[in-house]
Amino acid sequence: MTDRVTLSDLATPPFATRHIGPSDADRAKMLEVVGYRSVAELVAAATPEAIRTGTPLDLPEPASEDQVLAELRAIASRNRVLTSMIGLGYYDTITPAVILRNVLENPGWYTAYTPYQPEISQGRLEALINFQTLVSDLTGLPVAGASLLDEATAAAEAMALARRAGKAKSQVFVVDADALPQTKAVLATRAEPLGITIVESDLTGELPECFGVLVQYPGASGRVAGFRELAERAHAAGAMVIAAADLLALTLLVPPGEQGADIAVGSTQRFGVPLGYGGPHAAYIAVRDGLQRQLPGRLVGVSKDADGRPAYRLALQTREQHIRREKATSNICTAQVLLAVVAAMYAVYHGPDGLRRIARRVHRHAAVLAAGLRALGVEVVHDRFFDTVLARVPGRAREVVAAAEEAGINLRLADDDHVGIACDEKTTAEHVRTVWRAFAGPDAEVPVPADLDLTTPDALPAELLRTSEFLTHPVFNSYHSETAMLRYLRRLMDKDLALDRSMIPLGSCTMKLNATTEMEPITWPEFAGIHPFAPADQARGYAELISSLEGWLAEITGYDKVSIQPNAGSQGELAGLLAIRGYHRARGEAQRDVCLIPSSAHGTNAASAAMAGMRVVVVACDADGNVDMADLAAKIEAHRDTLAAIMVTYPSTHGVFEETITEICARVHEAGGQVYVDGANLNALVGISRLGELGADVSHLNLHKTFAIPHGGGGPGVGPVAVKAHLAPHLPAHIAAAPYGSASILPISWAYIRMMGADGLRRATEQAILSANYLAARLRPHYPVLYTGRGGLVAHECIIDLRKITKETGITVDDVAKRLIDYGFHAPTMSFPVSGTLMIEPTESEDLTELDRFADAMIAIRREIDKVASGEYDRTDNPLKNAPHTAEHVAADEWPHPYSRAEAAYPVPGLRAAKYWPPVRRIDQAYGDRNLFCSCPPVEAYQD
Amino acid sequence: MTDRVTLSDLATPPFATRHIGPSDADRAKMLEVVGYRSVAELVAAATPEAIRTGTPLDLPEPASEDQVLAELRAIASRNRVLTSMIGLGYYDTITPAVILRNVLENPGWYTAYTPYQPEISQGRLEALINFQTLVSDLTGLPVAGASLLDEATAAAEAMALARRAGKAKSQVFVVDADALPQTKAVLATRAEPLGITIVESDLTGELPECFGVLVQYPGASGRVAGFRELAERAHAAGAMVIAAADLLALTLLVPPGEQGADIAVGSTQRFGVPLGYGGPHAAYIAVRDGLQRQLPGRLVGVSKDADGRPAYRLALQTREQHIRREKATSNICTAQVLLAVVAAMYAVYHGPDGLRRIARRVHRHAAVLAAGLRALGVEVVHDRFFDTVLARVPGRAREVVAAAEEAGINLRLADDDHVGIACDEKTTAEHVRTVWRAFAGPDAEVPVPADLDLTTPDALPAELLRTSEFLTHPVFNSYHSETAMLRYLRRLMDKDLALDRSMIPLGSCTMKLNATTEMEPITWPEFAGIHPFAPADQARGYAELISSLEGWLAEITGYDKVSIQPNAGSQGELAGLLAIRGYHRARGEAQRDVCLIPSSAHGTNAASAAMAGMRVVVVACDADGNVDMADLAAKIEAHRDTLAAIMVTYPSTHGVFEETITEICARVHEAGGQVYVDGANLNALVGISRLGELGADVSHLNLHKTFAIPHGGGGPGVGPVAVKAHLAPHLPAHIAAAPYGSASILPISWAYIRMMGADGLRRATEQAILSANYLAARLRPHYPVLYTGRGGLVAHECIIDLRKITKETGITVDDVAKRLIDYGFHAPTMSFPVSGTLMIEPTESEDLTELDRFADAMIAIRREIDKVASGEYDRTDNPLKNAPHTAEHVAADEWPHPYSRAEAAYPVPGLRAAKYWPPVRRIDQAYGDRNLFCSCPPVEAYQD
Repeated sequence: MTDRVTLSDLATPPFATRHIGPSDADRAKMLEVVGYRSVAELVAAATPEAIRTGTPLDLPEPASEDQVLAELRAIASRNRVLTSMIGLGYYDTITPAVILRNVLENPGWYTAYTPYQPEISQGRLEALINFQTLVSDLTGLPVAGASLLDEATAAAEAMALARRAGKAKSQVFVVDADALPQTKAVLATRAEPLGITIVESDLTGELPECFGVLVQYPGASGRVAGFRELAERAHAAGAMVIAAADLLALTLLVPPGEQGADIAVGSTQRFGVPLGYGGPHAAYIAVRDGLQRQLPGRLVGVSKDADGRPAYRLALQTREQHIRREKATSNICTAQVLLAVVAAMYAVYHGPDGLRRIARRVHRHAAVLAAGLRALGVEVVHDRFFDTVLARVPGRAREVVAAAEEAGINLRLADDDHVGIACDEKTTAEHVRTVWRAFAGPDAEVPVPADLDLTTPDALPAELLRTSEFLTHPVFNSYHSETAMLRYLRRLMDKDLALDRSMIPLGSCTMKLNATTEMEPITWPEFAGIHPFAPADQARGYAELISSLEGWLAEITGYDKVSIQPNAGSQGELAGLLAIRGYHRARGEAQRDVCLIPSSAHGTNAASAAMAGMRVVVVACDADGNVDMADLAAKIEAHRDTLAAIMVTYPSTHGVFEETITEICARVHEAGGQVYVDGANLNALVGISRLGELGADVSHLNLHKTFAIPHGGGGPGVGPVAVKAHLAPHLPAHIAAAPYGSASILPISWAYIRMMGADGLRRATEQAILSANYLAARLRPHYPVLYTGRGGLVAHECIIDLRKITKETGITVDDVAKRLIDYGFHAPTMSFPVSGTLMIEPTESEDLTELDRFADAMIAIRREIDKVASGEYDRTDNPLKNAPHTAEHVAADEWPHPYSRAEAAYPVPGLRAAKYWPPVRRIDQAYGDRNLFCSCPPVEAYQD
Repeated sequence: MTDRVTLSDLATPPFATRHIGPSDADRAKMLEVVGYRSVAELVAAATPEAIRTGTPLDLPEPASEDQVLAELRAIASRNRVLTSMIGLGYYDTITPAVILRNVLENPGWYTAYTPYQPEISQGRLEALINFQTLVSDLTGLPVAGASLLDEATAAAEAMALARRAGKAKSQVFVVDADALPQTKAVLATRAEPLGITIVESDLTGELPECFGVLVQYPGASGRVAGFRELAERAHAAGAMVIAAADLLALTLLVPPGEQGADIAVGSTQRFGVPLGYGGPHAAYIAVRDGLQRQLPGRLVGVSKDADGRPAYRLALQTREQHIRREKATSNICTAQVLLAVVAAMYAVYHGPDGLRRIARRVHRHAAVLAAGLRALGVEVVHDRFFDTVLARVPGRAREVVAAAEEAGINLRLADDDHVGIACDEKTTAEHVRTVWRAFAGPDAEVPVPADLDLTTPDALPAELLRTSEFLTHPVFNSYHSETAMLRYLRRLMDKDLALDRSMIPLGSCTMKLNATTEMEPITWPEFAGIHPFAPADQARGYAELISSLEGWLAEITGYDKVSIQPNAGSQGELAGLLAIRGYHRARGEAQRDVCLIPSSAHGTNAASAAMAGMRVVVVACDADGNVDMADLAAKIEAHRDTLAAIMVTYPSTHGVFEETITEICARVHEAGGQVYVDGANLNALVGISRLGELGADVSHLNLHKTFAIPHGGGGPGVGPVAVKAHLAPHLPAHIAAAPYGSASILPISWAYIRMMGADGLRRATEQAILSANYLAARLRPHYPVLYTGRGGLVAHECIIDLRKITKETGITVDDVAKRLIDYGFHAPTMSFPVSGTLMIEPTESEDLTELDRFADAMIAIRREIDKVASGEYDRTDNPLKNAPHTAEHVAADEWPHPYSRAEAAYPVPGLRAAKYWPPVRRIDQAYGDRNLFCSCPPVEAYQD
């Protein structure tokens, strides 16, 4: 037993052995089923030789979990957390500990997928309905979406909405001169390719002819001004009014809806979501009646289940992935669900009175601060403000900001003569005094805040004081003790099925392990507490982390330059396409505006192309699901002079390593086009193949797919864009509000790569391919497997075809998906990319036990389908059509079904040991869309 | 809306408003039901004037949650975390992140109560069975308990077991001279009052006549020596053999059971439980066949449920609270469940191969370290060792230890000539080199560890190499990927009902909120990473925290001196009684050995008295449950010369503020006795009354009851002892292994007091009294409420009497308790202090909604009982007798019961919105005790 074994033999096994589910013994069994002797042999058979790289990944040796935490602590210590009074849409806030621990730090919440399967998502859907109600109540607009990426992109989405929904013919969009600078920058990025002209205005004079106007409320300078009259003028001219409004201010101020705004957008960050160097945070959008069907992003609505009980689900789903691609006008997919949940729960925990109290305290601090400045002889520019005071100190602004920084507070350097000071939930009288001293000098006599507090009136305009109620629903008035809040969070979490309970085999979504060690750092104060516009020397840790992460991603993908700014895949796509657009224009080929997209592409691709000002031309796929090379040639020929790009996914959305990828690249290049490869399926390539080496010019990656960032129940995501050197100069600088997008979750991907190392990453890819082929092999005798490549093999996902079954038995993909819930599983991707199919991606993290449990469930379901086919089961009253079955349903006194309760609830014996019970029966989707209702339903709705 | 409200009006409401469940509006409603106009009026009516203090608590102004975290961060920063190579039973270890986050940081685990109600505790019971299997497998002994407090007290328990179970008449106990010093110290503390003489021996020569011998294996010096022969000699002489063994070493060494040990004890700390400055950690005890019914502490066994399926529960429960008090020989109640769960899960995650790898690496580092020392000319004392090397450096030990400390490593200063160096899971080659340099000087040439590794053989004795297998059960060989582990933890957690899902109205156990902010600091590295014997200047933060906590507790209780060392209430009791014993002896009154205990007392009281060498004399209670003053007078008179003490609980275990408490104190004092007041019910007194002011001389407190430390599923607890000045010199210094007991969880109580402040603490007490009286008022029309005090009021808990109901209907407290599970509640305390009753303590943290939900459930159950009484329900086949009902049971195809499924599962409508399903039906307790089986059952047991 103790033969000469050395320390190196006894080292802790690499993290990859924890990340990758199957053990060596499992792999051997799986290979046998798939019919290969080794993983290497399988991968060689499954992948075209042309795509395999000859150069292994050059990454640092993998670190252990303990080591990576130590390294990240060292990196974090190089950030310096000062008190932030910069404002500009980002404010410090206290995340209630009960929410921090039980949402942000709980895998039951953060490993959940987007709630496409509403029956297993009632918990987070309720949280999102709370979010929508919060936004709707505070903005005074009837319909709010379930969050957008950030305030600036939300403003851009609102601009696009105003143009497509409005009546005005003008292409001019008027932007408040007092709008947030980052909002202006993103609007400019987005407007140009769409042919929109942006005109900045102080909004006091004549309104130019335009299709919409954006008002910042309160302004970036802090100024509070109403816009009732402006709205009237705009409407009279056929233009829409968008208010970019601070949600906390709206607890005290007349909301946009009551002033005539058509649309309101903004950030909910200050509702308990850490600054995080700029993100992720949940932005909001709300619209007046009549615009709800135009809303970009996701919208949660109330419908009913098979028992007629209220049940939540994503409303108007057809607008999203199933949208007619070429006509898309928004490419938004990912929301910021996890952060929207935090913001909503912050409101639930504080309630309307608590929020009002916080807002009033913030305002009082600002009012006292302004009074003190005046007392010190400093000019305060605006008399009416909520939380932000603009001080005029001619020629002295830099000096004041430096003095404050020296004293531990960051102020906003507006220009050489002006300093902005924003108060927030954490502001104290001591902060106020420190700011005064920064203006007056360290030894100057400064006022006593409490004294000034007694003599200083509020600085809110009397005519803008809010009188309407908000958050009157019981949910915002019931959970104000920590115990009550804790239980509410647990109750919602328990309704949902996330990765912490079972496999989520979603094709193209790569639901892999989100390891705890990867997740731990994101809530550390040194990462969470930094303002995105803090001086660079306070964020050295972030700079180091981002630089190494971008470098590693470039090495992994074979590109020259990576930008992590895009805070969702859709934004990465847009950034990449804008780089292509810029490249052509710089070369004097502005006419190149055709983007070829295969018919199998993700809907977002076409939407992004449209937003980048391109015309979409669809390329056909052949019977095997591959790009039809003849059609490609024809389309290239037809658009040779105007060809801008092709967008393809690799491996294809059909889950196949197409042999022709290098040829596609060559042909497009030859015609002067650029090649965009969507990185959604990168999990099949890492360490085996580099997109850059295949000939692609640009890709976006999904850190929330391949690089272990959790899906958070539907966001956050991060969608870095990676380009070859020639495109780098053309990458847009302002695709998101914050300079580094969703910076605070980048430690997750950093830790993942750091712990996996080159070898671990490659092994993960190989396992993902093996696991997909294992499932394909196990399911093939029972379901047709669509689209295989070389040797009948798939890549990292496989598509099973139910169309024949549906035709013969009436059992649809929907029925199978819902029936899987009874077996304790989240359904695979439904009807994408091919209607009537299920796309299964097991990922490398699922162990053999779980893969077999899933395969066994699918096979058992097939046997149930056979019983429908044979007539043993009724065609409409069977376990599939009635799925999912709730406990209440199977435990009801009446059992009207021809099959047994046991068949309904316990079709396989394992379920008796551990069973997930969905909280609702199948939800009526159409009913909800016909009767759109998108805020908290009245309590009476739940009465029997 | 914005009238002149000042900043102080707008301050964040104190934490107390989050901790206390009911709102002001709720309180008004509750007062109306109870019949008082104000809380003050109620408290005045409920409490005897004599007990009310005139002096409000003098505590710092309450801090906000945010502020207390900042203060604790500052305190933590004053601890310096060095690499620990001190050893002596405490070793650094890596807590797998997935276990840290999902057990130690998850309220689903840490807010659970002791698993007395096994049907709602199957998750943690399975975890504990894993723990027992781990211990049993590694020690080679067939039965292991579900954890003890620490290795030293476990050794003391083993000593007591050996004396009571053995045949030897001797009162001598032999202790290995190479035993851990803290074990020796605790054994000495425990032996003296029991009349046991401890003899230290190197165990090589003749064994003196004795009833038992304790062998440290490996020794404190690191030496590894077998004890087969010793065991034979001991057994031949009728003595028992106890091995205090390191569990990690046992993966490589022949286990105690195979060498003839009767008992093994030790710590499982190094299985993933942070050092935490000494605790809490789970100690273990395992025994040979024949001794299992003598095992102190809790033991989990396998029984079966009403369907005949395997189900876990605490075995041999009658040994605990229901034990015949006067004959008790162990006072152990609390286990270290949460830490035992961590240790068990560490083994589950690593599996036998992983544990062996860690042990071998630890050993190789030690072997290389020793070889290097020899190469440097340093004498290594022992040739055979596992992880600890003892170096002999005549006269230089201090210098070497100082040099190592300078380089960031703590070594053990054994004496002026010897240095101990212990390797652990975190030891690296770099540490080994640093140690060498500490011996050889900073500039000396030291060997290359990897080179020595190749040439250095293992240092384990060939004859002691383990050959037997361990942890072969599937549970230790299935969950080695993080995903699999995460799901296993979630699955177990979901089986259990803890405070994060519903009220746990346990009388005397005070299941209040364990706030997240209180819990956060305990896993911070600065608190978690410190060795209990680290130099004091590295633990300044701890010193500050402990000093202020002890001071606050003294202020709250009215005592002069508090010691937080006792790591459970039972240990606090023993410490307090030993102080009384010491006091009498010091005054030449050693004959004072009678301890009066009322018949209503908690069983632990009598057990503690017996352990303190006292004779227990029971004092009767009158019909109202109060101490019978006449009987008290008689007993005092009968034992006037030998009276040592009285032990009473206040308010009484009957939940009543007895009027006579001050008189009791006076009478006992007059007779020369001391007054011990059990602080179990302190939650009814804080801020209203001080035990010290009532005349008591000593109390123990339960930080896990009154001061917000969670119950952890059955531990850890902390039981500080508080004394008047005259007893302070007599407090034992070694009641627990570590100088500050369970130091790492003290931040919880610190934060609780710091955030509540004087006002918050008093208000919590008042609310606890109001809530108990509210429940009493709501339940009184339906159940008799036993034992009320002034004005028909109770204190902070109320007892409802089911004896008449049981007699008339056959429905027992057990039936009601199990039926409450169907309603989603943990049962109140059953049959304590009076058989046939339920004792309900709501605590201040439950809001009115939850109190009403509970009252409604109890009232609904009463209606069900009425149906049994009226014959509407069958007397044996009814929802009460069959409770709890599993989903599987109510969803079964067959429903053989005369009542409906809906009545079984959904007796009140609220359950349809959220329902907890127990994983098993009612468990057969007697079967399990008759067929004692205490390790993981074979998988086949679960097959149908």
